Parts: sequence; structure tokens; C-alpha cells
Amino acid sequence: MIERIAILGTGLLGTSVGLALRAASFRGAIVGWNRSPEGAQAALSMGAIDSIASDPLQAARESQVVLLAVPIYATLDFMEQLSGVLGCEHMVTDVGSTKGKICEAASRLFNTPERAAFLPGHPMAGKERGGAELADANLFRGAVWLFTDDPAAQRSPHSAALVKGWREWVVAIGSKPIDLDRARHDDLVAWVSHLPQFVATALSALLEEEVGALPELKDVGGRALREMTRLGASPYSMWRDIAYTNTEAVAAALNALEQRLAHLRENLRTPELRDEFERANRFRREQ
Amino acid sequence: MIERIAILGTGLLGTSVGLALRAASFRGAIVGWNRSPEGAQAALSMGAIDSIASDPLQAARESQVVLLAVPIYATLDFMEQLSGVLGCEHMVTDVGSTKGKICEAASRLFNTPERAAFLPGHPMAGKERGGAELADANLFRGAVWLFTDDPAAQRSPHSAALVKGWREWVVAIGSKPIDLDRARHDDLVAWVSHLPQFVATALSALLEEEVGALPELKDVGGRALREMTRLGASPYSMWRDIAYTNTEAVAAALNALEQRLAHLRENLRTPELRDEFERANRFRREQ
Repeated sequence: MIERIAILGTGLLGTSVGLALRAASFRGAIVGWNRSPEGAQAALSMGAIDSIASDPLQAARESQVVLLAVPIYATLDFMEQLSGVLGCEHMVTDVGSTKGKICEAASRLFNTPERAAFLPGHPMAGKERGGAELADANLFRGAVWLFTDDPAAQRSPHSAALVKGWREWVVAIGSKPIDLDRARHDDLVAWVSHLPQFVATALSALLEEEVGALPELKDVGGRALREMTRLGASPYSMWRDIAYTNTEAVAAALNALEQRLAHLRENLRTPELRDEFERANRFRREQ
Repeated sequence: MIERIAILGTGLLGTSVGLALRAASFRGAIVGWNRSPEGAQAALSMGAIDSIASDPLQAARESQVVLLAVPIYATLDFMEQLSGVLGCEHMVTDVGSTKGKICEAASRLFNTPERAAFLPGHPMAGKERGGAELADANLFRGAVWLFTDDPAAQRSPHSAALVKGWREWVVAIGSKPIDLDRARHDDLVAWVSHLPQFVATALSALLEEEVGALPELKDVGGRALREMTRLGASPYSMWRDIAYTNTEAVAAALNALEQRLAHLRENLRTPELRDEFERANRFRREQ
């Protein structure tokens, strides 16, 4: 029933969605747009999109489903522009990592019977480096895809059906949808996604200063060090908008970890160290 | 030339060394001893050792090379006992993660022309869980094997030849030996090995309290969370001795990371965040 999709932003996520849809036998048209023409060209040559749009708003208008796969502030800009040109025969969704501002804009600009539907989405998948070249049809396999839909949304039957259809495609490409209260989302991802990233960044930056001048000795850390600093390669451009739009929750999580590290440091020779290891063991056992 | 090896401690590392030696065509005898008989039995049935010793000191005396693959304080205990029963026809080596106390004991108890040689070793390989059952002939492939030998060691030609022979076997099983100043070792591993472990423990323990009650939502973190908390499964029994024997260096590294996280937290919305990401990126590029 979904026959035409526009992917606005053919970076790692947008291109991977296109590839995954094709791998799951989506037979409709996929038009792509990207800020840099090279990214769109790469997505086209990989088969993630069928054609490149020169005007993203026109491409959106000519599609049923619009996937916004750009950073958060760019997503918010597109939402403002799209709400004026789309109607109840469209639905828009996104992949943004924080949902507070996006959900607020969705309620203000979409989700009435006359307007397009907006389904806020957040696939918990990615790589430490971006770009269409690293896209992967299996990126979402086994990954959670969070939705923070508005329970008060008032949709036309047409756009409601598109929302249902998109949810089915998300399952078809191998991901596990979880619906989450919109207020809870940003707090939860601050703990399980943003905190791990910022810790890896701080640890990598610290080690760069402490042992960065001794490249041969970095080998010494082995797999443990490689894993704990892999996310250190993540680009600022991807994380700036997250830091800006989830500042309070991320700061609270960082502060809690600082206190935890200080506590551990003060207890390196007391039985409390055992308790802390056991709590950590428990977390891993339950995973 | 090495024809008889005693492995005292057939846990993950000891058993893996036995398997790796066999995979590299070591044709001599390997006798094993373990505190719990089950661990020795597992190593035997996996082919890592040919026989189980009931008396570790006698097994050591009847071998040329003795590998101590037990926690640090147990290694120090064995060193005291072995120095009385071994002579210049033996060499002893170990796999301990901190070298301060072990090197001090090595200089005091070994490494004269009349006594056995002691070569302090530290393979940078392991798993987040221990035990012979997880042993792997390829565990050391590509991993660094640190040596912190005493430049003042005075060895008999016989024990010196055994030291040389052991170094060759370490290469034969696929690891990359690096010689490190003994004073530098504990400081370096505090940064690149102990700090990542204690961060993973603190992060896992914190998340256990924050999201531990919501097991289905832990999926949300995906690969990034799994990686950043994998070491949270490490047992206290393995890390207690490290915390005790490298307290100062680990505390200094933890303190530096606490300050780094606070700095990042205070700069979530300033250009300093970009600089911190760039430093982290640089660390990963050089790896």
C-alpha cells in the first residue's frame, strides 16, 4: 500500500533504510535527496534509492511516506517547511536521537485530520562513522526501533493507514519496535545511549593526552581498550544536536557517573569494590 | 630445547597457553595444577595439559619452565615457595596484570647465577569471564605480551637459555612481545587496561540501578551499550588483586577521568565539546 517513499538525507541511516527496504522486497519507488550531491550519488549507485530529487519539498509532496534522516535541527527545519506543503494523504517520520523538540513540533505542525501524520521514530542502530558508503541493509536487524507517538494525534484514515504501513516495514527490515512515552524517551536514551557515547569520548580524549604520543603502546590495551574507545571516533557533527537538545538529562547522567567513579576510586581497597563488581555483574547477566 | 613445562593455574590464561603451545607444535610435556580439581580436569580433557600434578612444587621442580597463571597474591605466594626448591636449571614466568610487587619479589628471590630465572610477563589478552572452559588456542594471536625483565638479572647460561626459549614460544603462539621498563608498566596499564575496566564496572553498576529493573529496555542501547558494559561481567576475584597492587596509579587515572567528564558536562553547549570530540577522534585515528 506504500508505493512511494522519499528519503531526505542519504547518510548512513537513510541509505541503510533504502537498502533494507529493498532487501525486504519493497517494490515501490524510493526517491532520495541529500545536502551533498555525493551522498545522494552514493545511495543511488548502491541501489538504496531509484532517483535523486533536486527539490526535497517537491519529492516529499510526490511521495506518501517521507523519512527525515538528517540531524535533529535539520529535522526540525524540514518539519516547519513540510507542514505547509503536505496534507492528510502523507505521513512523515524521522530517525532523530532526541524526541523532546521533535514531538513538540509534531503536535504543533502535524497530526490533525487535515494535516500530514508525523510518527516520531528512533532506530537504535548506527556506526561510529557516518556516510552512505558505510550503509548496510542489515543495520537494523535485531535492533530496537523506538516510537514516541502522540496519543492525542487526530489523523485522517489515509494517513493513519500509512503510519500502520510504515510500522510494518520497520518490522519487515528486521527491527523490533518499542513504543515509549515521549516524556520518558529522552531520559532513557540519556542513560543507555548518550552516556556511553560521552564516556567513550572523554576516555578517548583523556588517553589521547596521556598515551597518544606512544602509538605502539596503544596496542597494549587490546580488545578491551578498542571496544571502550570505539565510539571515540563518532563525529561531533552527529552529537552536537543531541548535546543541545538533551542537555539536562545527559548532564544528570554524567554527574551520576562522576560520583560513581569517585566512589569506586575511594574504595579500591575496601569490600565496597566487591559490591560494585557484583552490581555490574548483575547488569550484564540480565542483558 | 624446552621439553617440560608446568602450568600452575589452569584457568582461562593457563589453559589457553597450553592449547596455544600444542597448536604451535610444542612437543614436550605439559603438566598442570589447579586449586580446584575441576579446572585441572577441564584443561586435561581439552588437551591443554598431558597430566595433572597433585603437588605443584614437585611438578615445578620436575619441569624446566614454570608458568604461574594465578591471581597476583597467589603468584607472590608461589614465588616465595618456588625460590626455595628451584635452581639454576629452571625458569619461572607469570601472567600477572601488575608488576610492581612481582618484579620486586623476582629481584629478591630469583635471577642470581645459582637460582632460577624469573621473567615477569603480562599477556594483554583475556575474556570478561574466566575458567578453563572458555580457553582458546588463539587467545594470544595478535595480542601484546609485555615483559618487564630486570636488566640487573644475573643468570646461569642454562636458565638464560630457557628465558630465550620461552620468549620464542610466546612469539610462536602468535603474540607480540614488548619489553617495558618495570617502573613504567603499572602506570601504563592503569591507563590503557585498568581504567577501561573500572569505567565499565562503574557504568554497568550505575545502569543496573537506573534501568536494571527494565530488562526489555536494555535492548534499547544496542551494540554501543553492549560494548561499553561487556567488561562489567568481569569477576571481582580477578580484579581485587589488581586494585590492591596498583591502587595509586588506578586512582590517579580514575580521578583524571572524573575531571574530564565534569569538563565535558559543563561544556555540552560550548565549542569545547567539539574540541573534545576531535581529541577523541584523533586517538582512534592513530590506533
